[in-house]
Amino acid sequence: MQSNRNGQDDALFPNGVGEWCHAFARRLWPIARSLTGAGTRETLRLLSEELPDLTVHGITSGTDAFDWTVPDEWTIRDAYIEDQDGIRIVDFKVNNLHVLGYSEPVDTWLSLEELDTHLYSLPDQPNAIPYVTSYYKRRWGFCLSQVMRDELKPGQYHVCIDADLSPGVLNYADLIIPGETDEEIFLSTYICHPSMANNELSGPMVTAALARWITSMPDRRYTYRIVFIPETIGSIIYLSRNLETMQSKVYAGFNVTCIGDDRCYSYLPSRNGRTISDRVAKHVLSHIEPDYQSYTWLDRGSDERQYCAPGVDLPVATIMRSKYGQYPEYHTSLDDLVNVVTPRGLAGGFNALQRAINILEQNVKPRVTTLGEPQLGKRGLYPNISAKGSADSVRVMMNMISYCDGEHSILDIAEILNEPFWELQSLMLPLIDKGLMEIT
Amino acid sequence: MQSNRNGQDDALFPNGVGEWCHAFARRLWPIARSLTGAGTRETLRLLSEELPDLTVHGITSGTDAFDWTVPDEWTIRDAYIEDQDGIRIVDFKVNNLHVLGYSEPVDTWLSLEELDTHLYSLPDQPNAIPYVTSYYKRRWGFCLSQVMRDELKPGQYHVCIDADLSPGVLNYADLIIPGETDEEIFLSTYICHPSMANNELSGPMVTAALARWITSMPDRRYTYRIVFIPETIGSIIYLSRNLETMQSKVYAGFNVTCIGDDRCYSYLPSRNGRTISDRVAKHVLSHIEPDYQSYTWLDRGSDERQYCAPGVDLPVATIMRSKYGQYPEYHTSLDDLVNVVTPRGLAGGFNALQRAINILEQNVKPRVTTLGEPQLGKRGLYPNISAKGSADSVRVMMNMISYCDGEHSILDIAEILNEPFWELQSLMLPLIDKGLMEIT
Amino acid sequence: MQSNRNGQDDALFPNGVGEWCHAFARRLWPIARSLTGAGTRETLRLLSEELPDLTVHGITSGTDAFDWTVPDEWTIRDAYIEDQDGIRIVDFKVNNLHVLGYSEPVDTWLSLEELDTHLYSLPDQPNAIPYVTSYYKRRWGFCLSQVMRDELKPGQYHVCIDADLSPGVLNYADLIIPGETDEEIFLSTYICHPSMANNELSGPMVTAALARWITSMPDRRYTYRIVFIPETIGSIIYLSRNLETMQSKVYAGFNVTCIGDDRCYSYLPSRNGRTISDRVAKHVLSHIEPDYQSYTWLDRGSDERQYCAPGVDLPVATIMRSKYGQYPEYHTSLDDLVNVVTPRGLAGGFNALQRAINILEQNVKPRVTTLGEPQLGKRGLYPNISAKGSADSVRVMMNMISYCDGEHSILDIAEILNEPFWELQSLMLPLIDKGLMEIT
Repeated sequence: MQSNRNGQDDALFPNGVGEWCHAFARRLWPIARSLTGAGTRETLRLLSEELPDLTVHGITSGTDAFDWTVPDEWTIRDAYIEDQDGIRIVDFKVNNLHVLGYSEPVDTWLSLEELDTHLYSLPDQPNAIPYVTSYYKRRWGFCLSQVMRDELKPGQYHVCIDADLSPGVLNYADLIIPGETDEEIFLSTYICHPSMANNELSGPMVTAALARWITSMPDRRYTYRIVFIPETIGSIIYLSRNLETMQSKVYAGFNVTCIGDDRCYSYLPSRNGRTISDRVAKHVLSHIEPDYQSYTWLDRGSDERQYCAPGVDLPVATIMRSKYGQYPEYHTSLDDLVNVVTPRGLAGGFNALQRAINILEQNVKPRVTTLGEPQLGKRGLYPNISAKGSADSVRVMMNMISYCDGEHSILDIAEILNEPFWELQSLMLPLIDKGLMEIT
Repeated sequence: MQSNRNGQDDALFPNGVGEWCHAFARRLWPIARSLTGAGTRETLRLLSEELPDLTVHGITSGTDAFDWTVPDEWTIRDAYIEDQDGIRIVDFKVNNLHVLGYSEPVDTWLSLEELDTHLYSLPDQPNAIPYVTSYYKRRWGFCLSQVMRDELKPGQYHVCIDADLSPGVLNYADLIIPGETDEEIFLSTYICHPSMANNELSGPMVTAALARWITSMPDRRYTYRIVFIPETIGSIIYLSRNLETMQSKVYAGFNVTCIGDDRCYSYLPSRNGRTISDRVAKHVLSHIEPDYQSYTWLDRGSDERQYCAPGVDLPVATIMRSKYGQYPEYHTSLDDLVNVVTPRGLAGGFNALQRAINILEQNVKPRVTTLGEPQLGKRGLYPNISAKGSADSVRVMMNMISYCDGEHSILDIAEILNEPFWELQSLMLPLIDKGLMEIT
Repeated sequence: MQSNRNGQDDALFPNGVGEWCHAFARRLWPIARSLTGAGTRETLRLLSEELPDLTVHGITSGTDAFDWTVPDEWTIRDAYIEDQDGIRIVDFKVNNLHVLGYSEPVDTWLSLEELDTHLYSLPDQPNAIPYVTSYYKRRWGFCLSQVMRDELKPGQYHVCIDADLSPGVLNYADLIIPGETDEEIFLSTYICHPSMANNELSGPMVTAALARWITSMPDRRYTYRIVFIPETIGSIIYLSRNLETMQSKVYAGFNVTCIGDDRCYSYLPSRNGRTISDRVAKHVLSHIEPDYQSYTWLDRGSDERQYCAPGVDLPVATIMRSKYGQYPEYHTSLDDLVNVVTPRGLAGGFNALQRAINILEQNVKPRVTTLGEPQLGKRGLYPNISAKGSADSVRVMMNMISYCDGEHSILDIAEILNEPFWELQSLMLPLIDKGLMEIT
């Protein structure tokens, strides 16, 4: 049994895992990602620099995947609104949220009245640029702050979206990290959102950090399948090509999203709700933040919709910080790397998922080797047991021993005692050392 | 899968099912029903006019049925108390509750003091004539309002009960409406109470309306066994003659009683408490009236006592409006067709049972035909889905789809989502139409 | 089925079982019991006078038992502290709690400062002599009230503990009372505490009374295994010598301790928590004292720690009055036979355990012999049924009958109806008498 690892002080992340993720996110921030296109490919290329074994795949537009079809590839080069004086008042190069995702090309002059039907803003958040897409219905449009919109004067405007929407490829990537068994732990995150931080740069950043940590793990029990995909269509494509393997191999899994702000922790269950992924997620969060926010399957909204769909039914749960749709900056330009996502928030998210993975790796069934209680006194195990008050620790240790019957796993015992898995592990070490406990 | 039917606007009940029941009840109101006798036969004859396939049975007095024996037949022709001036101050012909049910004959003069031991009234409800019977111990008596009783002056009174209590027959009726399978849905109601409305004319009236509606159903899955019996002794006789068949065939059942006032809805479970009848009753009531009154098996008091007895154990639950014993007019002359039972109350009771039967008939296990979520957008299924707010409906539809795995029935899903069965059915129709959902 | 017995008015205990226990406790009070030694042997000898079939065992010091070793025998003859004037200011012969249990011998002069490190008192309970032992680490010491300690003046003191701590034997006793089957009910109590009353003379006293009552039972279904042992080491030794037999035979069991004060009732579960012993304990206590104190396995502290240890797993629960560690006089000289343990308290504890044993003996599965409800009226079973309000009793009787299906035990039914087992038994007697109910 290995002790709990802490990525923060690891040689892998010299300035801490939170800073590592945040620095990487700052590099990816300006790239104009979407379901498809050059921005997404550039994002995957930069991920490959950190994860050399990452394999990038491309699927041709028009390919069928379950009930869906791979859409045309979107190439966006420039997009702006100019006024009659030739002044660019809305400019994609200033903020790539300004263009409605998957806009068809346009280059024309319009009156303000005509233009207005193509504008998106948020009256309740007047300084935010909203994030809007139209993947499956052809449209064009611009997103801007309500403040900017209110300043537009009657007159003619030149709108230009220099884009292509035509057959190409959709890209995604995966990484298989082998372990002692071919049973898999599955991590999925998405890479289709442009310049926003909690939803979504936090997801691929923390997943990349986890992949680096997992790769460095000396004695992995499980094989890890880690995927970076565009949301929805990407998970559908991935499942359509890997379903049989995944159904036979995946033991546990997490969808990694919205994992970078420092406000709360959140849990969203699998459809089944009682998988090992669900138990582990709830256990970790209940001890990291007892008041964590618990959602239901009916609150879902990300790739768990595909991973847990009828007939798919993978054991995928979700550990988040502030959940998509539940924080004010969600899907706007305000979801940034300054005020929302912080190194500390990213480190917390990494820590929660790392603890969950450690539990999955280490959840053995201990058995006390004596009949009746062991006599701890003669072995000097009563004092100096742990950091907590000694009497409390002895009580927890005796309670733990009373359940070490070879039938309860450490997680079972941790749930019964309402003590953290990792604290029970540290109480077990001296007992194993003295031959009083064995692992079955 | 058939759509939900609504008896109210059916050709079967041109003025509405509530008015149909109420009008029929008004015809049956004056008849002097009891466990046995001419009044009960006349009641069954009038029911047969509406339900031509009804079979009337007669069992000879003295016949054994389980632990019970069919009692003598009671024939009541007249009953009154006259004062010394020959004035009828209590008269069975004015209200048939005035004579204690199953009174033995008497014709004599008594002092007020002697008479008083044979009188029954309710001090707390001074205007109500109570309903009192003595089926298994020979007595005679008169029931009257406390107001009438208080006006009786000392003196001699002539009491006359012109009745026979002698071997004859006990009558009941049943109706078998065949369906695709010989599995049965069982409905039982009782016809032994004289002029009272919620307990009991509401029971046989709503049952008769249900029988008419079931007969008109084009594609019944189940066979229906519908019985009109005197309470307790009737259900014991019926079981003693049909137990083996019923134990092998009855899939679900309801005891139909107290189903006509418009105050509340009530549920009383089967002994088992977890039968399909119980689940359906609770589901219907929770969506018709979320604050419905829920009783326990320990509150029982009608024929479920026999249908759910040890060794009988039929899956019989009870859906009521105001439960017997729980409303002030219960078992008195105040339980009438004016202030207590109304067309609207009867229609509500009919509707609850009709919905329960529809669920039993239609509770299939739907399965989504795609892997992963279906793409609703390309099929135009996102907008115009239902009457509710569109976003809510899309959310409910997506939640429903997420459970359509061929293992959950519609009722299972309705319980998980806390949505009415019938609303999920209407959301399913376009999906079935587009080939996205199939029924297993 | 036998009726409920009440030890209080039995010929076995002419002055009541509480007084019998209390009188016996007064005889045992002055004896200096410990894990081993003459006091414990004398205690077992006096128990044997009341329980002639009791077998006393002796195990040699140094014998291994599971993870433990039988300690040396402790012989204590005298112990005191004298001041410079030769006055005995602390004297074992006045109260045997004054010497720390298992003190090694000492005979020397010390300054008050040196003496002080060997003194034990309770500042918060200044009049109480604490009970302190050091079985597995060699020490010597004196226990005294804080008031006495505060009066000690600087100076020299003569301390003398005239004791031996050397190889000998550890004694315990058991009693097997055979029944119709060789399935066993197991009772365990401990006899290692000197002059204290609730913890522990109440335990062996009530256990002795139960043994006398059980012996007098004419038609025992179960065999009884009753043990009197020193706590912890005694149960470990007993298990190490009887584990296989006990694991195959013991159907239910109770650890009998802290059973003599008259303040509250308490329940501590087995590790499993759902054994028949647990169900019976909770049922009895919920009807004797609805507000009884319920503890969890994590609050354990007596021999259940061994009986329910992993790999042992006997179905042993604990019924107590005030639990060890939870009443102010616990483990002090204040835990006495005057203010804490009373005849009434002992009788209550005996009564709870007696009822539990009666339930275990008599928990059959009754079956009503009729189909449908029996007709109680014709058998005169409606009136004069029990002491309670007649209508309530009829209601309880009918509810009970409705569950007498040969599948529910009396305890099952008592739990469903929330009525005492023994009241259901008395309602059953006339039904059995009339042939309406049979026992399966």
